[in-house]
Amino acid sequence: MKADKYEKISALARRRGFFWPSYEIYGGVSGFINWGPLGSVMKRRIEDKFRDIFIRRLGLYEIETPIISPEVVFKASGHLESFREPMVECGDCKRRFRADHLLQEFADLPSQETDRMRLAEIKGAIEEHGIRCPDCGGPLGEPKYFLTMFKTTIGPYSDVVGYGRPEAAQGIFVEFRRLYEQVRERLPVGFAVIGHALRNEISPRQGPMRLREFTIIDLEFFIDPESPGCPLLKRVEDETLNMVLAENRLRGSEEPVKLTVRDAVARGYIKMEWQAFFMALAKRFLEELGVPDEKQRFIEKLDWERAHYSTQGFDQEVYLDRWGWVEVSGFNDRTDFDLKGHMRESGEDMRVFKTREKPKVRKERILKPVIRNIRRDFREEMGRVLNLLSKTRPEEIEKHLKEKGYFMLGGFRILPSHVKFEERVTEEKGRRFIPHVIEPSFGSDRLTYVALEYAYTVKDGRVILRLPRDIAPVQLAVLPLVQRDGLPEKARGIYEALIEEGFTVEYDEAGSIGRRYARFDEIGTPICITVDYETLKDGTVTLRDRDSWKQVRTGVKQLPRLLWDFFRFKMDFTGLGSPVGEKS
Amino acid sequence: MKADKYEKISALARRRGFFWPSYEIYGGVSGFINWGPLGSVMKRRIEDKFRDIFIRRLGLYEIETPIISPEVVFKASGHLESFREPMVECGDCKRRFRADHLLQEFADLPSQETDRMRLAEIKGAIEEHGIRCPDCGGPLGEPKYFLTMFKTTIGPYSDVVGYGRPEAAQGIFVEFRRLYEQVRERLPVGFAVIGHALRNEISPRQGPMRLREFTIIDLEFFIDPESPGCPLLKRVEDETLNMVLAENRLRGSEEPVKLTVRDAVARGYIKMEWQAFFMALAKRFLEELGVPDEKQRFIEKLDWERAHYSTQGFDQEVYLDRWGWVEVSGFNDRTDFDLKGHMRESGEDMRVFKTREKPKVRKERILKPVIRNIRRDFREEMGRVLNLLSKTRPEEIEKHLKEKGYFMLGGFRILPSHVKFEERVTEEKGRRFIPHVIEPSFGSDRLTYVALEYAYTVKDGRVILRLPRDIAPVQLAVLPLVQRDGLPEKARGIYEALIEEGFTVEYDEAGSIGRRYARFDEIGTPICITVDYETLKDGTVTLRDRDSWKQVRTGVKQLPRLLWDFFRFKMDFTGLGSPVGEKS
Repeated sequence: MKADKYEKISALARRRGFFWPSYEIYGGVSGFINWGPLGSVMKRRIEDKFRDIFIRRLGLYEIETPIISPEVVFKASGHLESFREPMVECGDCKRRFRADHLLQEFADLPSQETDRMRLAEIKGAIEEHGIRCPDCGGPLGEPKYFLTMFKTTIGPYSDVVGYGRPEAAQGIFVEFRRLYEQVRERLPVGFAVIGHALRNEISPRQGPMRLREFTIIDLEFFIDPESPGCPLLKRVEDETLNMVLAENRLRGSEEPVKLTVRDAVARGYIKMEWQAFFMALAKRFLEELGVPDEKQRFIEKLDWERAHYSTQGFDQEVYLDRWGWVEVSGFNDRTDFDLKGHMRESGEDMRVFKTREKPKVRKERILKPVIRNIRRDFREEMGRVLNLLSKTRPEEIEKHLKEKGYFMLGGFRILPSHVKFEERVTEEKGRRFIPHVIEPSFGSDRLTYVALEYAYTVKDGRVILRLPRDIAPVQLAVLPLVQRDGLPEKARGIYEALIEEGFTVEYDEAGSIGRRYARFDEIGTPICITVDYETLKDGTVTLRDRDSWKQVRTGVKQLPRLLWDFFRFKMDFTGLGSPVGEKS
Repeated sequence: MKADKYEKISALARRRGFFWPSYEIYGGVSGFINWGPLGSVMKRRIEDKFRDIFIRRLGLYEIETPIISPEVVFKASGHLESFREPMVECGDCKRRFRADHLLQEFADLPSQETDRMRLAEIKGAIEEHGIRCPDCGGPLGEPKYFLTMFKTTIGPYSDVVGYGRPEAAQGIFVEFRRLYEQVRERLPVGFAVIGHALRNEISPRQGPMRLREFTIIDLEFFIDPESPGCPLLKRVEDETLNMVLAENRLRGSEEPVKLTVRDAVARGYIKMEWQAFFMALAKRFLEELGVPDEKQRFIEKLDWERAHYSTQGFDQEVYLDRWGWVEVSGFNDRTDFDLKGHMRESGEDMRVFKTREKPKVRKERILKPVIRNIRRDFREEMGRVLNLLSKTRPEEIEKHLKEKGYFMLGGFRILPSHVKFEERVTEEKGRRFIPHVIEPSFGSDRLTYVALEYAYTVKDGRVILRLPRDIAPVQLAVLPLVQRDGLPEKARGIYEALIEEGFTVEYDEAGSIGRRYARFDEIGTPICITVDYETLKDGTVTLRDRDSWKQVRTGVKQLPRLLWDFFRFKMDFTGLGSPVGEKS
């Protein structure tokens, strides 16, 4: 079996403080992890990168809403009904299992089939295949649905049920009316939440890939369904996406086709332009986290794979050493499903009013009865005649009168003298409607693990974490060459100065310089600054590049400006000084 | 009654998007709020300021741990036992009330008294004062304790109980062993968690001051109790603190005394130097959030007011218009209480080993019996003699022999010939001990509200939010003077350029320039950039200062560098250009 990167990275992550399972001293509780001194900083830098690309640069907004919500929220959202998994319990040992997983494992049924089974069908299949408890061989009971949300009680009254949010989106939908007013009633407009979410998985895998508590990044983008166009699309239309299309999957092929964003939209593979735009941004986002194009793909979900609120959905998948293709984000067209649900449950009007640039003009023919003549000709039948006239399309009457000179209406002979025709012009100033929602959604725990795996490289038998410089947890290390002759004091001074400048810096004097370089390569520190005897003479230091191990020499005075350019504007390392060896 | 700032700020916060109660469309659920498009950014900037002052600059660490913990964690921490409030239920209407609050309200008992009452005493007091249900007048039942933690179940087995963390500290204690190894076994060392916490309050007040879900900032700082000194103390020793001391409170005075950090430590008012250091940093932190010295104080908690884990505790309080003095942070000496608890419950050794710089040398006198002579003189009594000798301090025997030439031991006459004395030297290389913990703890929701209240000012009948520039949610606004003649296009270009530079910028062309200035004053935007006809000619723009309403003129090209200096290095506004009116 080939080396498993997940094992190696987990070991490194645990030893150096990126991530590890929670509560190990109590035997562990699966589905929970910690992000350590290095991991939490890296994870936050990734979240900040999302903020920069998807929020600040697009002029969208972030909000923060509670994790605990009252039950009605998930009644409206459909989660109470749909956020559940089929479960069976063993009659003897009482252990519980995912019923669909048992059928996949012991009856070789594909998930595409089990995903679509009802409880009765599941029960039937279990009996048919004579599946018993995998642990004790006991009989399996009635399949039941298990609601995979964490349930609790709000306040001292045990009848106020609350749940931990399985997604952050609902916090945005519930508050949509107020948010819409706060941003002065603009469409399109987007709101994001970055925060913890809870899913009470029946049997979560270990590690950061499937968690019971994780950080979700939900961006809900509200549009007018009558003007769904994305003016920003041209910024990304030449970007290519590797797409596994539903039509091909139904034919049994998971082979991706490479399409430009332009084609994917033009040929109708991605129905909403904004969906395509966010997918393109997401591809670039992952590239900036170190995942190359060929290790990314977008898989279109089949009807029975999509969440209950989605009409078209894509998962962005990244190839990982242990698990193969793994979802890192999802893109769903949620239409007006959620706002409608909250409108229904709360009675609050979730519609917005939009004035048309130029009012819509409607012309219609209307019929005016000539009462005097009608009374004269029909007497006491007048009422019935007027009633019948009001029920008939004016255009029809007018047509007959023009053609034949009369119109038979329920036995009455209507003549041109009985009616006049006029044109009425009406103007519609605007319309009320429920906005539709395009949703990109990421999991930042997975993103952080993915960035770690793609940064993990081995050079001369040593681990180097080639993290993109803007997500590396420690930016700089200041190292005195030796622990004597005033070098530590000098190095401390430079350390303090760089801290003052706002960098994330570590000072380290323990062990040989080689061992210290190795230590910082292993946690992905882009640059080591070495203070040596030269420094005391001419105030220059050695900068060492993590990836190339190249070294340049530069003056301490120029450090802050140079390093800002290096980190903020991605300036090339060789631009930081003169190659060591040459005169500086 | 004087104007209530809380009302005004809440109205502004709701209208412009700082904060408002959650779930209003469902009638609201008290104890939960949202942070909106402006509030969430401001709150995060405040948390980032904490990170800068308490973590990055001190070389401490941040970690991220789960909100949901298994029950054993809170058994170890003592919360299952202590994190509760006395509650009574009405026999008729079944409503529930805080028993201690009823006694305070209807029996005029001070909280200092009710805080110390046991359930039996509470019951007695309720009967004695004939207190009945405030709602329906019904009889009140047995007082019970209500556990104010949110309870849930982890996984499909309903016997695995979990709780939402009421503080983030335990996530650090549980993982201490691993964290300690990750930072290469250094002491002192500190770890912080910034994240949501849950407290199932029986009757929370509205607004951001008392919440059921809130953001806690817990910093757990681990020290060696044998070397509790704080080498950084000198950085803050001249800082003055307004302190309300326990000894004065016991005498009935809540008057603060002004002490320098140096005196507060020297005179033993603050027992731990690190505690004093963090309190001084916290004072500066609040000053940077806009709260002047005279509106801050530190109140020492009395024995029965302190949390169950604390031996000395101070609350940092800030004066607020509606509530008077309100806690914004707490400083507790948690000793080894928590690590001990987890060591007890998990069996995991929480002790650290510390080698002494120079081994501790212990010298002792030891007595060596001269067997030959003892046998000769005491024969079959030898055993008893040896036994008696082993039970007697060598120094005592030696002293008598020196003085009197013999020593009477249980009837036996011991002579110099029976014993020899030697000196034994032993070395202790190091010691094992459980670190002690100093904890500063903040609530960032409160901090954010406090910053809003202190920024709230009225000038010429208009609201200006004088937020410190580094926590203002929107840094810059770009405004074309009019909506024609190419000014909007020019302004858009400048907006895009500033976005590229990394600033948080808004573009606004709606309404008169005066109304737009007012709009940005109201949300605390430090600088408005106005694009006018001059701009088209000479490429200069007008910068307007939020607080002074002063205006300066400067070239678009210089903007990025100048604005970075303004925001990062607090450069004075007048330094940004030449006063409008003069030649530029």
